[in-house]
Amino acid sequence: MTYELYYWDGIPGRGEFVRLALEQAGADYVDVVRSDGGMARMMALMKNKTAGFVPFAPPFLKDGDILVSHAANILLYLGEKLGLAPRDEAGRIEANGLQLSITDFVVEIHDTHHPIGVSLYYEDQRDEALRRAENFIEERLPKFLGYFEKQLVRNSEGQIHAVGDMLTYVDLSLFHLVEGLRYAFPKAMTAAEPGYPLLVALNAQVRELPRIKAYLASERRLAFNEEGIFRHYPELDRA
Amino acid sequence: MTYELYYWDGIPGRGEFVRLALEQAGADYVDVVRSDGGMARMMALMKNKTAGFVPFAPPFLKDGDILVSHAANILLYLGEKLGLAPRDEAGRIEANGLQLSITDFVVEIHDTHHPIGVSLYYEDQRDEALRRAENFIEERLPKFLGYFEKQLVRNSEGQIHAVGDMLTYVDLSLFHLVEGLRYAFPKAMTAAEPGYPLLVALNAQVRELPRIKAYLASERRLAFNEEGIFRHYPELDRA
Repeated sequence: MTYELYYWDGIPGRGEFVRLALEQAGADYVDVVRSDGGMARMMALMKNKTAGFVPFAPPFLKDGDILVSHAANILLYLGEKLGLAPRDEAGRIEANGLQLSITDFVVEIHDTHHPIGVSLYYEDQRDEALRRAENFIEERLPKFLGYFEKQLVRNSEGQIHAVGDMLTYVDLSLFHLVEGLRYAFPKAMTAAEPGYPLLVALNAQVRELPRIKAYLASERRLAFNEEGIFRHYPELDRA
Repeated sequence: MTYELYYWDGIPGRGEFVRLALEQAGADYVDVVRSDGGMARMMALMKNKTAGFVPFAPPFLKDGDILVSHAANILLYLGEKLGLAPRDEAGRIEANGLQLSITDFVVEIHDTHHPIGVSLYYEDQRDEALRRAENFIEERLPKFLGYFEKQLVRNSEGQIHAVGDMLTYVDLSLFHLVEGLRYAFPKAMTAAEPGYPLLVALNAQVRELPRIKAYLASERRLAFNEEGIFRHYPELDRA
């Protein structure tokens, strides 16, 4: 069965955390909205008035009759099937907890450019964004990066992994977090990275995985831009 | 085995979503931080430098050697054990997705009074809070309440439930959402509630469950206040 990933076209966004897992596993999937008639299919699912469950927002995944919403929930669902989740229950629960901390971090990253409302343009909340981004770079960025770094320190023996002794979807998501932060806040990240050597090494390690490397070089990988979560507004960045 | 719930004392907060499930199931649990020496025990777990996994923040649950972080992850873990999760896989995935939409909503509710940074006092981000709360009441509150109401409409036959035909932890969380919103935004909710009859009816139905009723009348239930997620600042509220 082909997995159907539903997510907006044009941005990596929250869908990217799922794409990376599907790509690393070499899974059979279709990025629905990027295929012919895909946008209409996504809208039809989201406006369904009779089905039992409709997702609040993309991304969501369809696997036959199973409909899974939220990146963390999708990764929890796919993790075992794709061989990208720990084999033991405690590890799977831990992986989901770490992924939910990534989710929390992603909200805060997004809100640096949208602190007042998602319906407003960035330009209409720029003053508040300047203040929020300053607080983010001073306090939240080191808090989250420090948390994930410590998790890698506590866990890793030899190979660098977030959970257990194998590659999991959490590692792929941490790779993407660092990528996105480098795009959005190059000055802050250049200054910060020496403090997080395992996160930096994990990023480099994931980038060299053959399937990830091929994916990153393909047209399936969308570039970061100022429509997504990780946006580069130079005025929000600082060392 | 007694479940150990770790959460800050003094506020219902995110811990409350877990407490409601434990209470409704009549589970054997201890609210660790509210017991003697509990705060020190929570801090010791959070500062552990050798354990494989340390939660980013409370709430978390300990069940023997299993450590579960994040309210949604805890409810996913407890749901089946406590008989508060759907019996089929598709239903459990759907319940987790709905709970994650509740998580998303809770972040937005919290950020009405903290749009710039959690480390700053409300008074130091009041201007931004006024703007964010206005956007929240006009756009986000109806979007989320409308989403959950539609889910109840699509799903419910006779008894009102979010998923399937039984009471789940999602119903308990939706009860608490309405309670918290009524506390924080009484004018906005008085105006809004007629538009969400099933959510209102679900709230009333959950409140009358014998164990929930007893819990709400007990000292175990903490009152809402201006330290938690749902805060009543009259200047942020409007019809």
